[in-house]
Amino acid sequence: MFVHARCVCGPREGFQATRVALRDLGPRDVRIDIAFAGICHSDVEHARSLRGATRYPLVPGHEIVGTVGAIGAEVTRFAVGGRVGVGNMVDSCGSCDSCAAGLEQYCPTRVLTYGALGRDGRVTQGGYAGAVVVDERFVLRVPETIPLPNAAPLLCAGITLYSPLRRWKAGPGKRVGIIGFGGLGHLGVQIAHALGAQVTAFDLAPEKRADALRLGADAFRLADDLDGLAGSLDLLISTVPATLDLEAWLGLLALDGVLVWLSIPGAPLALPPAALLANRRSITGSRSGGLAETQEMLDFCAVHGIRAEIEVIAADAIDAGHERLFAGDVRYRFVIDAATLAQG
Amino acid sequence: MFVHARCVCGPREGFQATRVALRDLGPRDVRIDIAFAGICHSDVEHARSLRGATRYPLVPGHEIVGTVGAIGAEVTRFAVGGRVGVGNMVDSCGSCDSCAAGLEQYCPTRVLTYGALGRDGRVTQGGYAGAVVVDERFVLRVPETIPLPNAAPLLCAGITLYSPLRRWKAGPGKRVGIIGFGGLGHLGVQIAHALGAQVTAFDLAPEKRADALRLGADAFRLADDLDGLAGSLDLLISTVPATLDLEAWLGLLALDGVLVWLSIPGAPLALPPAALLANRRSITGSRSGGLAETQEMLDFCAVHGIRAEIEVIAADAIDAGHERLFAGDVRYRFVIDAATLAQG
Repeated sequence: MFVHARCVCGPREGFQATRVALRDLGPRDVRIDIAFAGICHSDVEHARSLRGATRYPLVPGHEIVGTVGAIGAEVTRFAVGGRVGVGNMVDSCGSCDSCAAGLEQYCPTRVLTYGALGRDGRVTQGGYAGAVVVDERFVLRVPETIPLPNAAPLLCAGITLYSPLRRWKAGPGKRVGIIGFGGLGHLGVQIAHALGAQVTAFDLAPEKRADALRLGADAFRLADDLDGLAGSLDLLISTVPATLDLEAWLGLLALDGVLVWLSIPGAPLALPPAALLANRRSITGSRSGGLAETQEMLDFCAVHGIRAEIEVIAADAIDAGHERLFAGDVRYRFVIDAATLAQG
Repeated sequence: MFVHARCVCGPREGFQATRVALRDLGPRDVRIDIAFAGICHSDVEHARSLRGATRYPLVPGHEIVGTVGAIGAEVTRFAVGGRVGVGNMVDSCGSCDSCAAGLEQYCPTRVLTYGALGRDGRVTQGGYAGAVVVDERFVLRVPETIPLPNAAPLLCAGITLYSPLRRWKAGPGKRVGIIGFGGLGHLGVQIAHALGAQVTAFDLAPEKRADALRLGADAFRLADDLDGLAGSLDLLISTVPATLDLEAWLGLLALDGVLVWLSIPGAPLALPPAALLANRRSITGSRSGGLAETQEMLDFCAVHGIRAEIEVIAADAIDAGHERLFAGDVRYRFVIDAATLAQG
């Protein structure tokens, strides 16, 4: 079966219309007829080959939502017509310590949703397409109360914030800072607030203040003015795809405070150890989330009314969307309407 | 009261004999007649003004053991003649969150044992001296079974390893690596082993292998050959006063593994975030230990037969000791015999 898609063929190429062949439906496979796909910052990085050598042609997209179009003979958890989604993984070994712990995102042989070599030897292709075939283990249910386009970014941006907020115990009495109020940050603020934490949003753009406060931040601070905040936070999550002045940001952390890193900037961070020794601070990293936790996140977002704020775009606008996202110009996530893929 | 001491008067000066005035005994003060003082790597750094500007003249020494020579009227926990010690702090505010938690080492206004401004406005002077007057809160009991010279290094080197090993839960089933088998590392190996962890000692010097295995390491590895160790450790503690190749060392950590940093090298560390995101690793810092924990450590060492392996030197050999320590040439800690201070 072939479906419409948009692919990129080189680091300096634009997106073009194409058709991709879906694999035959295996007994445990689900075919998702895609309704919307979010555009993640890493889509831009992969499209431009900024994270090692990309396998072209590439169909990005790992914030996928839609409905079940078909199921394999042994599929038990899903029925045709169900609202479902897929995040940034479509396979894992299922037997390592990470998989056993429900932390498939740390499985050393997990298979990413696009641009990775699947166990069948084929390169995976992502959600800028009309459909995708995925092992049911990696398919999530999207609660009815979350509109599909607003749900799409939860599959990557949402879980990428939810997982560290849970692991490092954001909740009542915890002072949480979210660095960067963008696609990830605007979800992090909502989730941390819903978890009961006291939330400070940091961004360089003063015009984001109103949105940050509306979405649950207790305070908004310009990211280049940290005066008076020394030792005032327990958990800081950097959502920005860049390096930071670690000495300045670590200085905001109180005793046993933790700075969580989510991005892979091109250069190493300059880490002054004295800033760790003071207050016994930690810096750590977090990578999306496991399958059970991703389902938990979707259900949590449904209960708490958390949604991505989005700009829906047509497939023909993907190039412009990538440009604007790379420049930080989006409120707060682009979502491609898959119904437009056949055009152009 | 004046006592013999050895001081250094500038970053390129040698040590010289001097006398220092002790403060009058306050109601809660203990005068410790010093028997032995260990030489810590930070003594060398402070003597040479390598950690910011040192206040000269400086009497270093914060691994102090001896006997109680006199007590103030309100002292209840100590009696004249008792075996006692002092580590790297002699005061703290007593009321901040860190002090309340028994983590006086993170009190923002703690007073270091030497070279710091005390609350009385005087610069503190350390243990390369015949006696020192200290608030009883900061005085520890040295168990009878640990010979005094072997106990001295426990007050800094010992607690600096014990505290992170406890906090990051070294124990049965935990795979612990100690980077650097020196003054700190040889105690870390003993403590981690006594806690029940599986211990790997790393050092650049192959001739330390026998000592490492004798003191409890399950394995010894050359620090420049990490082949085959990827993802094999849960906790890594770097005792070396230098930067490291963080990508290589972080790569040894399994899921949720932690690298603990103890030193303050002159340059920032180069931290590749991808090494944190993989396996959700952390890098953190730790600074000596609190008072209750230091007492716990001394009692633990007594029970488990843990002692510093030392070279006792006379006061006239301090310059040579600093030289050799800075070059890493000591098995494994120099301890000054305070009885020799009056000579020279």
